[in-house]
Amino acid sequence: MKKKPLDLARGKQKKVVIIGGGTGTFTVLTALKSYPLSLTAIVSMADDGGSTGALRDQYGVLPPGDVRRALVALSESGDTLRALFNYRFSTGDFEGHSFGNIFLSALHKITGDFGSAVKEASRVLNIKGKVFPVTLDNVRLSARLSDGSVLEGETNIDIPKQGRKRGRITEVWLTPRARINPEARQAILEADAMVIGPGDMYTSLIPNLLVEGVSEAIRNSPAKKIYICNLMTKFGETDGFVAEDFVKTLEQYLGPGSIDIAVFNNRKPSDKILFSYKKEGSVFVPPPKNAMGNMRSISVDLLDAGPLIRHNANKKLAKVLMSLL
Amino acid sequence: MKKKPLDLARGKQKKVVIIGGGTGTFTVLTALKSYPLSLTAIVSMADDGGSTGALRDQYGVLPPGDVRRALVALSESGDTLRALFNYRFSTGDFEGHSFGNIFLSALHKITGDFGSAVKEASRVLNIKGKVFPVTLDNVRLSARLSDGSVLEGETNIDIPKQGRKRGRITEVWLTPRARINPEARQAILEADAMVIGPGDMYTSLIPNLLVEGVSEAIRNSPAKKIYICNLMTKFGETDGFVAEDFVKTLEQYLGPGSIDIAVFNNRKPSDKILFSYKKEGSVFVPPPKNAMGNMRSISVDLLDAGPLIRHNANKKLAKVLMSLL
Repeated sequence: MKKKPLDLARGKQKKVVIIGGGTGTFTVLTALKSYPLSLTAIVSMADDGGSTGALRDQYGVLPPGDVRRALVALSESGDTLRALFNYRFSTGDFEGHSFGNIFLSALHKITGDFGSAVKEASRVLNIKGKVFPVTLDNVRLSARLSDGSVLEGETNIDIPKQGRKRGRITEVWLTPRARINPEARQAILEADAMVIGPGDMYTSLIPNLLVEGVSEAIRNSPAKKIYICNLMTKFGETDGFVAEDFVKTLEQYLGPGSIDIAVFNNRKPSDKILFSYKKEGSVFVPPPKNAMGNMRSISVDLLDAGPLIRHNANKKLAKVLMSLL
Repeated sequence: MKKKPLDLARGKQKKVVIIGGGTGTFTVLTALKSYPLSLTAIVSMADDGGSTGALRDQYGVLPPGDVRRALVALSESGDTLRALFNYRFSTGDFEGHSFGNIFLSALHKITGDFGSAVKEASRVLNIKGKVFPVTLDNVRLSARLSDGSVLEGETNIDIPKQGRKRGRITEVWLTPRARINPEARQAILEADAMVIGPGDMYTSLIPNLLVEGVSEAIRNSPAKKIYICNLMTKFGETDGFVAEDFVKTLEQYLGPGSIDIAVFNNRKPSDKILFSYKKEGSVFVPPPKNAMGNMRSISVDLLDAGPLIRHNANKKLAKVLMSLL
C-alpha cells in the first residue's frame, strides 16, 4: 500500500512519456516504475510477427504484443497475473500464442475498439500510469533497401533471412497512412520529459514517428527529449552504425535538433559475449567521440551484468534517467 | 459502491451454498446475487465437452466451463469483463473456445493448481462470494444404462445421439475416485442454507454427489437443504420422470430424507413452446400431487416469460428463495 501517497500526488508528479515498443520500452518502464512519476507508454503498432501476426491475420485485430509488454511492465498486480499475461502456450490449439495477446484480441473483438481494450486490460492489470497505442489505425510497415527492393511487413524487415546480407534500409513507411491516437498526442503535448528508445531503429522506434502527427507533437511538446541509444548494432537494420548515426537517423524522421539529451553506454561487454553477438552480425556501439550540435551527450556505464547485452534497468538506467528528469 | 455496507456485514450474512453446475447454477446465483447473502457456489467438475473437453485433452487442465459460468454470474465487474469471459471465438486457431475457459486453463498451467486459478480469476472478476470446484481431482463421468451398456464421458451421457432412444441410466460414477475439495467441504459444513439444482440430474447435480465426502458433508451440515426441481424432463436422462422421481433420484445419492424443502414450478408453458421441446424429447414436469415424507413441498409459478423454458431468476425464483432463506 506504499503507493497511495504517490497516487494522491500524481497531479504534481512529473509527466514522463516513453516512446518505443518491444524490449527497450519494457526496460525503461521497469527502470522508472518505482519512482513517483506519472508515466505514459506510447507503443508502436507495426508488429506483425509470431503470435501477434497470427492474431492480426485471423481476427483482424490490432497488434497486441508491444502493448502487452508495456502493460506487464507497469502492472502492480501480483506475480501470477503478470505471469499469466506473458504465458505462452507451447502446444495445442493455442501453440505459440501469448495469453496476454489473446486477452487483448478478445477484448478488441468485444469492444470493437483497441483503445478501449487496452484501457480494460490496464484496469485488470492495475497498471501504474497509462499505455496508449501510437495509432488506432491498422497499418503495415514497409522498407526500401539500397538495392531498390521493397520488404513488406515488420517481421520481414526485423528478421533478415538467416545469414543473408542485404542492402541497407533507405526508407520505411506505413500502409495505409495512419493518424496519431488523440490520447497519445495529448500525453506528448503535456509531457515534462520524453524518453525515446532504446529499441530497434526501423522496426520499433521509427514506426511511431511515421504515424501522422507524432513527430509534430514531439517537436511542439515542451518536454525534455531524451534518447537512449542501443548498446549494439542490429544486423539488417543498423549495420556499421556509430553512435552519431543512431541520433542522425532518428532526427531524419523527428526533425533535426529535436533530441535534447542522448544517453550512451560506455562499458564494453566482455570479448566472450561480444563474440557470440558478432556471429549474429551485431557489434558494440561505443559512445560518440565528439559533441553533436547543441545536444547534450551523456556517456555512462549502462551495461547489465547478465549473459545478454542489455541495459541494466533498475540501477544504472534508473539512476541516469532520474538525474535527468 | 453500494456494496460496502453488505461487505462489512458479510460476517453476519446468511451463508448460502449453491450446488450444481451449468445453466441452473448460473440462474440461482443470478437470483441471489443482489441480496445481502454470503454466497458460495460449488460446481461439478465432470464436464468434458466442447471447449472444456478440448482444453482438458490438450492441456491436461481441469474443466473450466462450469466454474466460468459461476464466476460470471457472481462478477461485480463491468459488462465488458463479463462479456469477455463468455466471449467465444467463432473462427481461427481458437474457434469454439470461450475466452474464460482459456483464462482459467492458462492460470491452471501457471499456478499448477486449479483452486488457485479459480481464486485469481475471482479477484479479476471481482466476484461477490466464492466459487469452489467440488473436487480438484481430474475425473471422468461414466454411466451404465438399463441394457447393461456403459457410456464414458459426460458429453456422451449428456447428448444422446440425435433421435436415438437408449436405455435409461441406472448408475453413474467417477473415474478415478475423487475426494472433496476441502474448501467446498468447509463451506457446506458452515452453511445456513443450501440450494441444489436446478440442473441436469446425471450430468450436473449427481456428479457433485459422487465425489467422496460431499453427500456426507451435506448430511452433516446444519443447513436447510432446498432442492429446485427442473421445469422439464431431459431426453436420455430423466425421460418419464414425474416430480417425485427427481427428488427420489437425488436422495438415492444424497441419502433418504436429506432434502428439507423442494420447490416446483406449477405454471405450464404454452402449447406452442411445449411442442418444440417435445420434438427434443423433453416434456413438462407438473408439481407433485401428494406429500413426500417430511419434506416440505412448494409449488409456485417459476416460469420465465421468454421463448425458452427457463426459471425466472430475478423475480420469481429470487422471491421464493428469499422467503425460504
